[in-house]
Amino acid sequence: MKEFEGYKYIEGGVCAAKGFKANGLYCGIKKPAMPNDGNESPVNNMKNDLCLVASDRMCNAASVFTQNKVKGAPVTVSQKNLKATGGKAQAVILNSKNANTCNADGEEKAMRMCELVAERMGMKPQEVLVAQTGVIGQIFPIEPVEEKIDELIAGLGYDKNLEAATAIMTTDTVKKEVAVEFELDGKTCHLGGMGKGSGMIHPNMATTLNIITTDCAVSTEMIQKALSDVVKITYNCLSVDGDQSTNDTCAVLANGLAGNTEITDEGKDYEIFRQALYIVMMNITRMLAKDGEGASKLLECTVTGAKDLDTAITVAKSVICSPLFKCAMFGADANWGRILCAVGYADAEFDINAVDVVLASKAGSVHVCENGSGVEFSEETAKQVLLEDEIQILVKIGDGEGKATAWGCDLTYDYVKINGDYRS
Amino acid sequence: MKEFEGYKYIEGGVCAAKGFKANGLYCGIKKPAMPNDGNESPVNNMKNDLCLVASDRMCNAASVFTQNKVKGAPVTVSQKNLKATGGKAQAVILNSKNANTCNADGEEKAMRMCELVAERMGMKPQEVLVAQTGVIGQIFPIEPVEEKIDELIAGLGYDKNLEAATAIMTTDTVKKEVAVEFELDGKTCHLGGMGKGSGMIHPNMATTLNIITTDCAVSTEMIQKALSDVVKITYNCLSVDGDQSTNDTCAVLANGLAGNTEITDEGKDYEIFRQALYIVMMNITRMLAKDGEGASKLLECTVTGAKDLDTAITVAKSVICSPLFKCAMFGADANWGRILCAVGYADAEFDINAVDVVLASKAGSVHVCENGSGVEFSEETAKQVLLEDEIQILVKIGDGEGKATAWGCDLTYDYVKINGDYRS
Repeated sequence: MKEFEGYKYIEGGVCAAKGFKANGLYCGIKKPAMPNDGNESPVNNMKNDLCLVASDRMCNAASVFTQNKVKGAPVTVSQKNLKATGGKAQAVILNSKNANTCNADGEEKAMRMCELVAERMGMKPQEVLVAQTGVIGQIFPIEPVEEKIDELIAGLGYDKNLEAATAIMTTDTVKKEVAVEFELDGKTCHLGGMGKGSGMIHPNMATTLNIITTDCAVSTEMIQKALSDVVKITYNCLSVDGDQSTNDTCAVLANGLAGNTEITDEGKDYEIFRQALYIVMMNITRMLAKDGEGASKLLECTVTGAKDLDTAITVAKSVICSPLFKCAMFGADANWGRILCAVGYADAEFDINAVDVVLASKAGSVHVCENGSGVEFSEETAKQVLLEDEIQILVKIGDGEGKATAWGCDLTYDYVKINGDYRS
Repeated sequence: MKEFEGYKYIEGGVCAAKGFKANGLYCGIKKPAMPNDGNESPVNNMKNDLCLVASDRMCNAASVFTQNKVKGAPVTVSQKNLKATGGKAQAVILNSKNANTCNADGEEKAMRMCELVAERMGMKPQEVLVAQTGVIGQIFPIEPVEEKIDELIAGLGYDKNLEAATAIMTTDTVKKEVAVEFELDGKTCHLGGMGKGSGMIHPNMATTLNIITTDCAVSTEMIQKALSDVVKITYNCLSVDGDQSTNDTCAVLANGLAGNTEITDEGKDYEIFRQALYIVMMNITRMLAKDGEGASKLLECTVTGAKDLDTAITVAKSVICSPLFKCAMFGADANWGRILCAVGYADAEFDINAVDVVLASKAGSVHVCENGSGVEFSEETAKQVLLEDEIQILVKIGDGEGKATAWGCDLTYDYVKINGDYRS
């Protein structure tokens, strides 16, 4: 992971910050794990499907949700709850395998999830957020949650982040957790999160399920501002397959236990907090891209020289989303014409005749296009560059200051295989 | 093919109309065909890569081209030529395997293609259109064209449509030709065309290469009007992979030999001509979708009840473009939640809680979603419906008059295979 001065990567995920407990377990929403049936989570053979993250005290909380018109019931319920509390929350309950979306009884059951936690932990139901992921349009079975809720809460621990992170995995092959430690106002602060992939990933304001916790003291308003800023240049610059999920939820909970003076405006402290959020969300974004369904390679497209940030984002995402380019990367084929093609259909203003393209990886780099036309390059070198599992596509589109990175992955046989029969 | 009253499907493709000759041959842009090397065109083992369509007399001509900022050199040259002649053309020369795009010497060579024809056929170079398709960013070899141009012209015939239609095939597995006969003003008219697929198909104003010829007398202005209208509801409602080609060209040439009074305004005759154009272009659209790269199924999504045509088109295209839905169709999995998801992220106005979805094919139909929520259905029946090779997805989104169909195909292992190493 890229180093950032003043920030130290630490273990702990959603439990890295002081006063945050978590737990995860198998309650029966997923099919039961059988030895060697291939259904277990690859992480420690766990097959968790339900988890809880809870703070020892009330948090300021902000969230971004999917922009899809079809919103999962948990999105609607979490939005209502945050509105009712004016941006406060103390716990988040999550499950995988069933998105509880397009169900007539969906909201009722999502609210029931919050109640089950609240009743047992001395909170109001509105102080609990809920996030669900999985198949759309299948009736959500609330019974397994009711049966296991006591065990889930009894098992909460300050080191159970892994149990939680694995419970939100669906087709993910690795858990996604990142946390950092940093100084603020003379106090040691922590900020960490967990996320899940890995299909239906083309975020619009947020992606999939991401829970971020911090012991920083920061106002709801400033969390929301930082989250909206950072999501634009991290999760919203990610695409696995162009399909925008109905259940995208990214929530940040800040409990203030680090003891710093609460951040309430945009000064230096805010910048330090925002950068911590960026580091965690950017790294989770990379993890999500690299573990995209069926992916064999991480693709990282950086566009420079744009007239502004939005132009750079639009062009970078256009490249990352091109199925033909994604297939070429799977085949380690330096078919740069497809990059130019995708740059060309991006809905953005720039001079196509000024476009330069370089392909790079640990194995080196090749300059494949200059001023919009091909330049001679060694196919052999290009092959070496593209056989690596992390590929950078560097696209210069002019002399402006706008710069952005978008993340994606290659399109492989396994993506088709995984999604040909996902429901079973 | 669907029947339309007053129109009769006929053979002949681009040669169906009076006074149009064609020819196609192998000149050496594609790799040489070897017995059983798998590189031959599947049609009659032909491996043509160069073709010519020419009218006995000057035509009124109109065209639509790609909206990609990266435009193939032939697009630029054809646009200039049509402008120079004020909408006249007498011939079109086409090749496959090399798109002559992103090459510094591209325009010069595309113009040379026109000159080669014009010099030998007594035309001005501006009266010849040029269209090229294939790999982007590889220097186009003009020499094989220069060597074979005399043979190409000498072999022109009024029945050589198949030679031409196969010369524009790239990864296509079948040739695409449609023609109809109809009456206009007491005269028998003909209108026919050829098209090619089958990847990088997500047209914006036109698709891939399509040449349509007719012996109707119709003004350039009215051809352009009809073409723009019809392309919106046919080629522009087609998506194989979401990648918009750099070389999209659809040209219509009308030589007037049918002897009808020239159509110069929007009366009844115009409607008859426009409908003929619709029938040919709609059928080619279906063929392009069904023969999409790697496709095993044609997907036809019809949206009804929209507030207007544009809303219906937007929603239908959103469904057809969803990679997850395309994979589910490959797996014959009635995962209708993915249809709702794609309907939900369509950038259009409607009430998501009014959405109904029916899946249908020759084997029957299943109602899977009503008022935005799932309804019980037989998984067995759904499987039977989805195992067919032509699937209809019927989506009702309200009570409006807007209705549109979009065409696409499933996403399969073979799409990935074909595109993992396309250049070699």
